[in-house]
Amino acid sequence: MMSRHQPIYDIAELCALKGVTNVVLSPGSRCAPLTLAFTRHPKLTCKTISDERSAAFMGLGMAQQTKIATALVCTSGTAVYNYAPAVAEAFFAKTPLVMFTADRPAEWVAQQDGQTIFQQGIFGNHVKGFFQLPQDYNHPDSAWAINRMVNDALNLAMQYPQGPVHVNAPFREPLYPETAEDFSYSKGINVQQVVSSELTLSKSTRKQLTKELSGFHKILLVGGQQHNDAPVIQFMEQVSQKHSLPFIGDVISNLHSITNLVRHADLFLGQASIEVKKSLQPDLLITFGESVISKNVKLFLRQFPAKAHWHIQPTGIPADTFQGLTKIIHTEPAEFFDFLDKFETPENFERQKQSNYQKLWEVEERKALRCLEEFFPQAEFAELELVHELMNALPENCGLHLANSMSVRYANFIGLTTEKKSVTVFSNRGTSGIDGCTSTAVGHALASKTPTILLTGDMAFFYDRNAFWHNYAIPNLHIVVLNNHGGTIFNMIDGPAALPESEEYFVTQQSLSARKLCEEFGFDYLKIDNRRKVQNTLKDFLDFDGSTKILELESSHTLNKTIFEALKLKIKKSYES
Amino acid sequence: MMSRHQPIYDIAELCALKGVTNVVLSPGSRCAPLTLAFTRHPKLTCKTISDERSAAFMGLGMAQQTKIATALVCTSGTAVYNYAPAVAEAFFAKTPLVMFTADRPAEWVAQQDGQTIFQQGIFGNHVKGFFQLPQDYNHPDSAWAINRMVNDALNLAMQYPQGPVHVNAPFREPLYPETAEDFSYSKGINVQQVVSSELTLSKSTRKQLTKELSGFHKILLVGGQQHNDAPVIQFMEQVSQKHSLPFIGDVISNLHSITNLVRHADLFLGQASIEVKKSLQPDLLITFGESVISKNVKLFLRQFPAKAHWHIQPTGIPADTFQGLTKIIHTEPAEFFDFLDKFETPENFERQKQSNYQKLWEVEERKALRCLEEFFPQAEFAELELVHELMNALPENCGLHLANSMSVRYANFIGLTTEKKSVTVFSNRGTSGIDGCTSTAVGHALASKTPTILLTGDMAFFYDRNAFWHNYAIPNLHIVVLNNHGGTIFNMIDGPAALPESEEYFVTQQSLSARKLCEEFGFDYLKIDNRRKVQNTLKDFLDFDGSTKILELESSHTLNKTIFEALKLKIKKSYES
Repeated sequence: MMSRHQPIYDIAELCALKGVTNVVLSPGSRCAPLTLAFTRHPKLTCKTISDERSAAFMGLGMAQQTKIATALVCTSGTAVYNYAPAVAEAFFAKTPLVMFTADRPAEWVAQQDGQTIFQQGIFGNHVKGFFQLPQDYNHPDSAWAINRMVNDALNLAMQYPQGPVHVNAPFREPLYPETAEDFSYSKGINVQQVVSSELTLSKSTRKQLTKELSGFHKILLVGGQQHNDAPVIQFMEQVSQKHSLPFIGDVISNLHSITNLVRHADLFLGQASIEVKKSLQPDLLITFGESVISKNVKLFLRQFPAKAHWHIQPTGIPADTFQGLTKIIHTEPAEFFDFLDKFETPENFERQKQSNYQKLWEVEERKALRCLEEFFPQAEFAELELVHELMNALPENCGLHLANSMSVRYANFIGLTTEKKSVTVFSNRGTSGIDGCTSTAVGHALASKTPTILLTGDMAFFYDRNAFWHNYAIPNLHIVVLNNHGGTIFNMIDGPAALPESEEYFVTQQSLSARKLCEEFGFDYLKIDNRRKVQNTLKDFLDFDGSTKILELESSHTLNKTIFEALKLKIKKSYES
Repeated sequence: MMSRHQPIYDIAELCALKGVTNVVLSPGSRCAPLTLAFTRHPKLTCKTISDERSAAFMGLGMAQQTKIATALVCTSGTAVYNYAPAVAEAFFAKTPLVMFTADRPAEWVAQQDGQTIFQQGIFGNHVKGFFQLPQDYNHPDSAWAINRMVNDALNLAMQYPQGPVHVNAPFREPLYPETAEDFSYSKGINVQQVVSSELTLSKSTRKQLTKELSGFHKILLVGGQQHNDAPVIQFMEQVSQKHSLPFIGDVISNLHSITNLVRHADLFLGQASIEVKKSLQPDLLITFGESVISKNVKLFLRQFPAKAHWHIQPTGIPADTFQGLTKIIHTEPAEFFDFLDKFETPENFERQKQSNYQKLWEVEERKALRCLEEFFPQAEFAELELVHELMNALPENCGLHLANSMSVRYANFIGLTTEKKSVTVFSNRGTSGIDGCTSTAVGHALASKTPTILLTGDMAFFYDRNAFWHNYAIPNLHIVVLNNHGGTIFNMIDGPAALPESEEYFVTQQSLSARKLCEEFGFDYLKIDNRRKVQNTLKDFLDFDGSTKILELESSHTLNKTIFEALKLKIKKSYES
């Protein structure tokens, strides 16, 4: 006997045919037809995670790494709303997710019967699309509609800009199959395949851009957050060298393999004099990728705006982070760099000017790097130095997850060297929240065999501790916890530090350490309590021997602030000598 | 020098003048003007809670108990979205909350700069109202608008039906006061006071209702979830006795002081024969209050519908839980009971019929109660028996929080006796989620001095463990954890139990016990591991001596299911003899 839920079971088959491999489910009863559909499918890898907030961030971590949509499944009610933080992050970070949320039949919403909230369109503008599945399957159009909507949802999630799509599925009881029912997936279900065109800049467009480009002699490249796509990045390096284009990329841009990359702009732009900054002012700014961490880069480009700002993105409305966008070029960065590669400078083009401009950036970058190298070791071992040691000791081909808010900033101050080109950096910079950084890294570790390292502060770490509340081993995840027992970032900002309320309401003291957590979940606990142990402890920490490891450094936020201020002062002084 | 943020600082003063006392803040920088405004106010009690999901549920717990809106304050970005589960619960449970969420200036939304999401109207239909504050204060209308909107928000949150209201406050930098600025609250700020009318049933309405009521002789009262308002409940008891009205109230109705209350309907209606149920069928159903837990009461009233169903609520669209609503009476339950009290039965009214009808319910209630009393002790001590012991040992004037999902059901099966009339029962039955039950109880304990007892399962308990992640002592909170290492409820339902996936995907095994958590947070840990210790352990547990205590019973879900089935069988058999 064919199941009443056959069109629902076929959703899993369609997901598998469309290339989905990872599914994160949260327990519930209303979602039983979806749970059965996904967990029984031989080609789908399912994980059960009880806290839906954490489950959604895990799905995000899987999708960040695979670039393929993760399917999420949860029951009705506030379960759905717990997905919201990860959905917002996925939307702004352009990460593909498809949320299949079970619901009561529409008639039963707000009738004081069980777990119901208003699930239709619940994520508002934070999803690329919303689909309400039919709740009765008697008419043949229902099966067609379900198949069509799930095709649409998966296609929409995977198209540029990738992002989250919500499929709400109301179910009538009985939710569980009757004994006489067959369970199988239909053969030959309809797959709507998408064939994409290449986004090629036409000859006439190239001609026009060539003409415009020839008028600029201080051209600056800035790469935002993007994946580590080695061939494209190699090509970018080659092109930027050919035309002497200075190239800024902070740690989340994954451009660190590029030899001449300006990777410490955040450090030196914060301290450089007005004159130096004026000399660095571009006349054309070219950007691609997503967000930039460095506040100093943003302030510099707003304060010393380029005459023109070209942004490369395949389609859609861009963010105008630097407040001076003049041209949106709808293509892939690789195609635009191909145009740059073939750009032939006209006779009147002042090559020397561009070359000099690049040299100015190189000088600043080298100076900042020298300051940084001279700066360590400090008298007292603290967070910044551990991050420095860690970044230089990272194993090949690992994934480095940087939690908000100080961890990602520290990592950006230190930067990754060219030698670490096989390392890929991840960070939830769509919304920059601390709420799911650990779960995201756990999701990554669950969906891959590569070593994954999470650098996190204590606030982000304990906020999201349900990341560990499940039954799956994560031996390939090792975590560094910078524990200063509170939110140091608020102490780093001048405003709150000056207020009497600082300690209680801004710094947010918290007293936990990671040791108990390690005992509870059976992780190896490593603690750095003096400098002599650092090298050995770090070596032990970076040994991926089958155990989940947590390395904790407890240090006071006062010490960390002092050291950070000392580094800033050192760089500032380098401009005075 | 007057602060640029004066209209924002005055929000705290207005909240205090409108009777708000409890404020829950989460750390952040964008919200600095609000944080200063609230934390510096001498009449407001502020708590800082880092996990916004937990913070919002704590605010809910405070408001559940005080019936006055809690003010919530958080920073921009996904912080806001973490409020969503508690906001949905507050909406459906009619609990007053005002969420003050900081935001970036509107121009900066979706510009890849810091923590921004689409905060305007983010909670959709789950709030009673949304207000977007001005972001520039130069024009005098701004201060007027901010005062007016916050007046509106507070008034709206407090009017029936009470509920959550969202105030989004965009802030420009600088966020922190300059040294030269004064900090004070304006004198004589405008308070919009609300004067409410009494909802009085007119003479003609009473006459009409009297006429209609006289036609019914099997009138049944069912009370849904409500506060424990002793004088009103005493009056209800008196009226129901006067007219021989059987009165069903499950554990969350707080009607347990009523001597003749039918409190075990869920137990016996699940097992009674069709004939018995037919004899219990009402011709008029009268309901008031919010949701009813008992699935068996709902099924009975849908399967054996009354000829008429009158529902009492002050205003608004009601839920039609029993699928047969015929009359909505817009007044307070107390006013309707006053009408009932004064209802003079006409000469042709068959008093005896109504009296017989009440006796039928009494017989069933007494039989169920006898079964229950005979049932314990069971050979093996398990969850249901612990709940039985606990409910009978509760101290006077305590608050009893019942977590979803099995805990509240167990408590409803056992029921509270008349002697426990000073106990008030709380449970998040607006959306029936497990996501914030502990935080809700913690919020209650933080805002009161009364002993607070939380009965919870392990899933709800560990899901919401961030309820403990703060620096406030909660000596008046004692917690019973029924730890069966998974979601027993899915095993209690026949559907999933029969499936091969049951263990992995429906029962959701989890391995934690509460011991480590107690070590981590410095709570007393009490464990029940054999029957002989029960009485002493429970006595120790119920001693409110200044320590937070957690009592854990670890038992298998198979054992719990067996015992629960045995109780059902015993009641079923009582109908056969």
